[in-house]
Amino acid sequence: MVKCRRCLVEEASVWIPYAKLHLCKKCFSEFTIKRVRETVEKYRMFGSTDKVAVAVSGGKDSAVLLYTLKKAFPDVRFTAFHVNLGIEKYSEDCLKKAEALTKMLNLELFIYDLKREKGFTIDDFKHTRFKRRICSVCGTIKRQVFNEVSEKIGVNVLATGHNLDDMVEIMFSNFLAGDFEQLSRLKPVIPPFHPKLVKKVKPLFRIPENETALYAFFNNIPVREEECPHVKGSRLIERKRLLELFSKENPNFKYQLLSVFLKKLIPILEEREKEKAFTVCEVCGFPSSTNICGACRRIMELKSVLGKV
Amino acid sequence: MVKCRRCLVEEASVWIPYAKLHLCKKCFSEFTIKRVRETVEKYRMFGSTDKVAVAVSGGKDSAVLLYTLKKAFPDVRFTAFHVNLGIEKYSEDCLKKAEALTKMLNLELFIYDLKREKGFTIDDFKHTRFKRRICSVCGTIKRQVFNEVSEKIGVNVLATGHNLDDMVEIMFSNFLAGDFEQLSRLKPVIPPFHPKLVKKVKPLFRIPENETALYAFFNNIPVREEECPHVKGSRLIERKRLLELFSKENPNFKYQLLSVFLKKLIPILEEREKEKAFTVCEVCGFPSSTNICGACRRIMELKSVLGKV
Repeated sequence: MVKCRRCLVEEASVWIPYAKLHLCKKCFSEFTIKRVRETVEKYRMFGSTDKVAVAVSGGKDSAVLLYTLKKAFPDVRFTAFHVNLGIEKYSEDCLKKAEALTKMLNLELFIYDLKREKGFTIDDFKHTRFKRRICSVCGTIKRQVFNEVSEKIGVNVLATGHNLDDMVEIMFSNFLAGDFEQLSRLKPVIPPFHPKLVKKVKPLFRIPENETALYAFFNNIPVREEECPHVKGSRLIERKRLLELFSKENPNFKYQLLSVFLKKLIPILEEREKEKAFTVCEVCGFPSSTNICGACRRIMELKSVLGKV
Repeated sequence: MVKCRRCLVEEASVWIPYAKLHLCKKCFSEFTIKRVRETVEKYRMFGSTDKVAVAVSGGKDSAVLLYTLKKAFPDVRFTAFHVNLGIEKYSEDCLKKAEALTKMLNLELFIYDLKREKGFTIDDFKHTRFKRRICSVCGTIKRQVFNEVSEKIGVNVLATGHNLDDMVEIMFSNFLAGDFEQLSRLKPVIPPFHPKLVKKVKPLFRIPENETALYAFFNNIPVREEECPHVKGSRLIERKRLLELFSKENPNFKYQLLSVFLKKLIPILEEREKEKAFTVCEVCGFPSSTNICGACRRIMELKSVLGKV
């Protein structure tokens, strides 16, 4: 039996390779909360006077985000919100779990229903030319909705549950696709560069995916059981598996890649972007690099297709 | 039996995944020569009036380089040269194979003996603090020697045998290490930015390593059998294996990565470097970003250690 390196009493249940630590369930949970607290403080994500919205999807990462933030910062007022994407079967499960989570934490849940608010669901994009790239469209739409919701509920900070693996996977794919503009969106803290925007923060960005999964499991956090039907065709999972292989060889691999992106590449890219002017989308009014933003363009395309159906 | 897709007669021996081609030995060799010719022409590496030095190490890549260049450009005058690095057992094998190759091709071989010319061997670095990074020191020293040799034998172009896997592996490691300055050295064509330098070209940069190996094998090209003793501790081979795993999923992976580096990242880095002044090394006289270049600093350090031994 391997003993926990922290309490030296309990049996160790988790091995943290990059920190070379064996931990028991309880000490692992404390270790995670401490890391979340330190990340928020080190990167000045928010303070006690801020109003923080937490996007809760029904999945493990955002559930762990809300749960650990509540424990790490008992004095901060968090507003949980959930976007019902209208994905058959999947979204119903997500909504239920988001409700169970906020009930468990004694918090209110603000629900934004895509169908009710905008008249379409993510599933509807199956009828458009984006049918093979629904995950990408879904990301664009969610970004817009997150902006709207943050404005509506009157917060000045928005926290999302991106974990280390998400960060590395998205950065690496964008890099490989040569899409350098998207890269800077992955920063752990994005200051509001326009009055209509709020500060966006990612408190879990240094926590590997297997740890958020274990944390959710150990703490009986309600988490969706359904898999999103659109993720099946996507390359995301395969790419994460490959990055995992690299990590097996080199436990610091993900942190190394993250650090190169955040400390070397993104600063160079941002320096170049500085001069670039941005405008405001003619339709939704949020900042955009084009006259009509990506989300609104996709929605217009969807509506014209749905009109024809 | 799978037939060759080119001649439609012979049995196919090679599968080219990125081109979706089954080829027989003969058509594969022609396919390779054609790719080398096209690469040299497309990237304007040299023309019939240029004097081209080819660095021949005794390994498969540089052997295939000299062999295919000779076939692809019968009118160009190539000067083969070999640097004897003084690595025990290994370097003797390398020299023999370089001699056999040039004899086979009816070419002279210019030999540069590191011990005789500079008074030390690569093995000597075992006594310095670089002992765990001999591959890196060896690269720095070779770069300097290549400059010296090119000047001495009076050529204006220097060709080296970097294959696609080398390019991608070195770029990716430099990227991961945050060493963005080294990245631009990996360009397929580096114009001489100083009168003491020659143009450097990499005609095999689009050819995967397994193809240079097969080409050497099919054409009975003499190739070293010894493994460099210093490569054993290096991470290079492991990293190449991992990049191979990515390629299994996506046959275009290496080309994609190469293209992002060459077309997106390096141009951005070069734009920033433009203003940077370079000076000339006080010791060897070749361009350097510091008063004394990396190679000369390492040699000075080696000599002071050897003096003490």
